[in-house]
Amino acid sequence: MTPGHGPRAGEAGEDARIVRTRADVARTAFDVLVREGSDALTHARVAERAGYSKTTLYKHWPSRFDLAATALEALGDVAHHEPTGDIRTDLVGELKAFRRAVLDHRLDQVLSAMAQWATDETMRQVRNKINTDGQRPIRAVLEEAFEGAELEAAISMLAGVVACPSLMFGTVPDDDVIEAAVDIVLHSAG
Amino acid sequence: MTPGHGPRAGEAGEDARIVRTRADVARTAFDVLVREGSDALTHARVAERAGYSKTTLYKHWPSRFDLAATALEALGDVAHHEPTGDIRTDLVGELKAFRRAVLDHRLDQVLSAMAQWATDETMRQVRNKINTDGQRPIRAVLEEAFEGAELEAAISMLAGVVACPSLMFGTVPDDDVIEAAVDIVLHSAG
Repeated sequence: MTPGHGPRAGEAGEDARIVRTRADVARTAFDVLVREGSDALTHARVAERAGYSKTTLYKHWPSRFDLAATALEALGDVAHHEPTGDIRTDLVGELKAFRRAVLDHRLDQVLSAMAQWATDETMRQVRNKINTDGQRPIRAVLEEAFEGAELEAAISMLAGVVACPSLMFGTVPDDDVIEAAVDIVLHSAG
Repeated sequence: MTPGHGPRAGEAGEDARIVRTRADVARTAFDVLVREGSDALTHARVAERAGYSKTTLYKHWPSRFDLAATALEALGDVAHHEPTGDIRTDLVGELKAFRRAVLDHRLDQVLSAMAQWATDETMRQVRNKINTDGQRPIRAVLEEAFEGAELEAAISMLAGVVACPSLMFGTVPDDDVIEAAVDIVLHSAG
């Protein structure tokens, strides 16, 4: 390496540190969010848990919504069901994947935190995008059988089979409840 | 009034003040919760908005969960649909009453805040009771047509038609979506 590359190497080292810091903070912020609730997601708490100074956190994430957005990045792509082409199998599979995300990643806590943050316009857009992306597979399957008001109803109804018990009672539906919901919807399919 | 009653009259005056303070703080705490989100529901913010000292608030509501519980008291009894005995009319009416509570009382914000607070055991119990009470009318109607896994699925599905769009996208369903959801469920009724 020529001496001319010294500063660049230094920058690369700094970049690597920033990347590591971002990943650490995102993971910690996500963990604080799902274990302690959105109220606990403060610079002080994340700094303490991640082992960084509050100054570092305020430098990279000036507001609490910046911390929140970073926490949501750490959510990554929640696993979806691999489509088979059979509508019943795919709806049941997708709802079980949603249930798995509630159990493994506390997606219910993420959903309710995003609803709380939606008083902020930027966070409202982040929330809408994440939920639109999340519903896309189930919408794609249901579009084969429904349209208009029935389609919108069926999407909310199937999302509700997992979302409602988890948000309202902290529980998830058994397999037979998920299958009953899919059968109720498909019974009306044209 | 004999002199002996002096202190009692004084107590009555103090009681009236306490009752008024409780009502003021409950109303303000509820307002802060639904307009600014659960993060904003702090002693400092409620004191500022209600015009009381922080000392007064900490004296009567030592923790933030005490403030939260008081805010939920102010929710009062959300209006339900008056049952007619016709299952379709009663389900559609109850879902429209739920939608009205989202629009008038931001019940969606209350639901997501309660989900966030449920990391605390007492708040979890408060949440479960409020949601059990809220679902009782729709459960009673659906019990006429369903049982077991189908009943649990149908309750979550109909709750989801209003809860999912409001929590996930900040919108409420049109009449035709509510009616489509009820018809999908009733199509499967035995």
